[in-house]
Amino acid sequence: MKKHIEDFAFLGGKKAFNHPLHIAQINLPPWEDVKSAFRGIFERRYFANHGPLVRELDHRFAEFVKTEHAVCVTNGTVALMILARALELSGEVIVPAYTFPATVQALSWAGLTPVLCDVDPKTQMVTPETIEPHITPRTSGILAVHLWGQPCEPEILENFASDRGLVLFFDACHGIGCSTNSRRIGNFGAGEAFSFHATKVLNGGEGGCITTNNAQLADKLRTIRNFHPSETFAPVPLRINGKMSEAQAALALLSLKEYPENVAANFHRYEAYRLGLSGIPGVSLLEYNPASDNNYQYIIVEIDEKLAGLHRNIFFELLSAENVICRRHFYPGIHNMTPYSKMASTASSNFTGTDWLCQSSLQLPTSQVMTEQDVKMVCRLVRSIQLLADPIRSKMDDKP
Amino acid sequence: MKKHIEDFAFLGGKKAFNHPLHIAQINLPPWEDVKSAFRGIFERRYFANHGPLVRELDHRFAEFVKTEHAVCVTNGTVALMILARALELSGEVIVPAYTFPATVQALSWAGLTPVLCDVDPKTQMVTPETIEPHITPRTSGILAVHLWGQPCEPEILENFASDRGLVLFFDACHGIGCSTNSRRIGNFGAGEAFSFHATKVLNGGEGGCITTNNAQLADKLRTIRNFHPSETFAPVPLRINGKMSEAQAALALLSLKEYPENVAANFHRYEAYRLGLSGIPGVSLLEYNPASDNNYQYIIVEIDEKLAGLHRNIFFELLSAENVICRRHFYPGIHNMTPYSKMASTASSNFTGTDWLCQSSLQLPTSQVMTEQDVKMVCRLVRSIQLLADPIRSKMDDKP
Repeated sequence: MKKHIEDFAFLGGKKAFNHPLHIAQINLPPWEDVKSAFRGIFERRYFANHGPLVRELDHRFAEFVKTEHAVCVTNGTVALMILARALELSGEVIVPAYTFPATVQALSWAGLTPVLCDVDPKTQMVTPETIEPHITPRTSGILAVHLWGQPCEPEILENFASDRGLVLFFDACHGIGCSTNSRRIGNFGAGEAFSFHATKVLNGGEGGCITTNNAQLADKLRTIRNFHPSETFAPVPLRINGKMSEAQAALALLSLKEYPENVAANFHRYEAYRLGLSGIPGVSLLEYNPASDNNYQYIIVEIDEKLAGLHRNIFFELLSAENVICRRHFYPGIHNMTPYSKMASTASSNFTGTDWLCQSSLQLPTSQVMTEQDVKMVCRLVRSIQLLADPIRSKMDDKP
Repeated sequence: MKKHIEDFAFLGGKKAFNHPLHIAQINLPPWEDVKSAFRGIFERRYFANHGPLVRELDHRFAEFVKTEHAVCVTNGTVALMILARALELSGEVIVPAYTFPATVQALSWAGLTPVLCDVDPKTQMVTPETIEPHITPRTSGILAVHLWGQPCEPEILENFASDRGLVLFFDACHGIGCSTNSRRIGNFGAGEAFSFHATKVLNGGEGGCITTNNAQLADKLRTIRNFHPSETFAPVPLRINGKMSEAQAALALLSLKEYPENVAANFHRYEAYRLGLSGIPGVSLLEYNPASDNNYQYIIVEIDEKLAGLHRNIFFELLSAENVICRRHFYPGIHNMTPYSKMASTASSNFTGTDWLCQSSLQLPTSQVMTEQDVKMVCRLVRSIQLLADPIRSKMDDKP
């Protein structure tokens, strides 16, 4: 517990951690398993072009998500680009401003016009109310995002999109293994795009996947993901090299096996955070809908400056200096980033919820290498910062 | 030597090879080196996001190509997409119809309109004469292709593009390590895009790279290849996840070390083919410009039906049945593929050179696992097929 402001590393004290605590998971299976999988690739001399491991992952991930089809690709951005092309939309697609830039930019790569909408500050996700004002005669679809490993009320959105005659699809990059009312993410809308990036709960190094229960769409996705004439299953508007390599699939297959224990460990750390952060004025941990299953991959807190006495950015600076590597996701919001900040549809819209989150949200570290003791220490740091809010604020105001 | 048409596997005989001979190189470094590189990644827990190995490859590949900048990405298609975006072109870009589909489709992903042009049937590549008729007020650039590991007279194209006020850039996916008048591919035009696919002479499993001598363009390329705010070096129109993983870089670095011996082995096989195929009527091996350095990654023959007595497709069928896995690249030409076949600029153009190559070109196997004896056997098969052209043709005409 730091009792004086001089104890904080940012203000001259000793760092609380010798090594940086990262927000990234980097869940790693045992080296012997990895070695033996890589040795197999080497012996088969089969590194790319949908070898046996990618085919197995297509199969196993569909089984895991309980969808008819899973189409693995090289990363989550490419998954979104391929899905958007395969849906053959045109004109405008409504998408939240509070998301990772890839969600929105994938639409631009697919030749579509993203129209940004606000999110509900409570769930941090889109709702019919935040989407509705943006529907025009040019709107063809909605790209919703399941954020922080929690479903975004997909059943409500399905009804809403269907009533409006719009195609609904999902950025499920955060949503591996999550479900709502026992229906797994991956089964909603026309299709859903996942990420197996090294920092995700399912680690393929890099990697992505698209799931759908529509056989015709699956044929298009499988055709678009590479140029090979023998893998032409349906007419498509355009193809790409979106191939996942065997090395990615090897890692992802091992990681998939360990999913239950990795999520259990995530939950354990989440609970430790919940306990450790309870009762700190102005600091609230994102809560999950009890009707949902979550992968607890993220520790997201909101810092209300009025109650905490300090802006989120001060917590960010002080924690970072202690080797607690936190992140301000998503900062700035997409509505404040080029090229989207300059669009007429952005200028004329209200982003109250997004603006609040961009200013108040802070992601804290959680990873395989973090112990319960580490979590307790991070929470104690947050508590100390808040307790010393007044002197810290004065001191920071004095700083050049 | 097969002496009777019944000896051919396609017509009921025994296969000449027990295992398929592939056109793919799959040059593999020793397993112990691969294992130790992968172990390093595992121990650093650093799989993606431009780790030490990708940074080293950026550096080493620039050194190898002798360019100021090399920007590694996940594959050659993405390299082309990123390069096309970074150049901030608009409207039409002229590109050969005789190329891998990725060359052309990358332009479509980048929001540009590809306008297909013909190639010189002798070099199989574009020339000022094949490009000229397609220049309109909407033309902003030329995407030329170095095919089969041979430079496409880039200096002539540079002068031509400069005279016309057009931006010239290159698909150099086949061109690793090649040079013309001692200037390495990678140094021409505004920028050049390479592929490190498993089947390329430099094997990263999957992989790609963009090289340029323009620092401002390099900053844009490095910014576009990922979304990370800390890697924002220049304003760009759009970003993507084009990141190469550490696993890809590990393999490519090992492969780069072995480049000289791999190319020497390619050359050895090329010479064996040259000897083995000499004097077969209507079968000619692609010859290289003596002013160029080549990587000899491909064995390309042209089959002139009138002189050989059989169409290329018959050679293809008969050789494939013997386990000699050959390829008809590029077949069909892009001008006969959707969506480009339907474009007005395609319909109104002449593709005589491309059509000839699409009908006559055949790629024969060459790879690390192929012995000189294998090459001799393939050549003997080609010779036997041509010698027995008349009875084979009669027999094939009888087949249903």
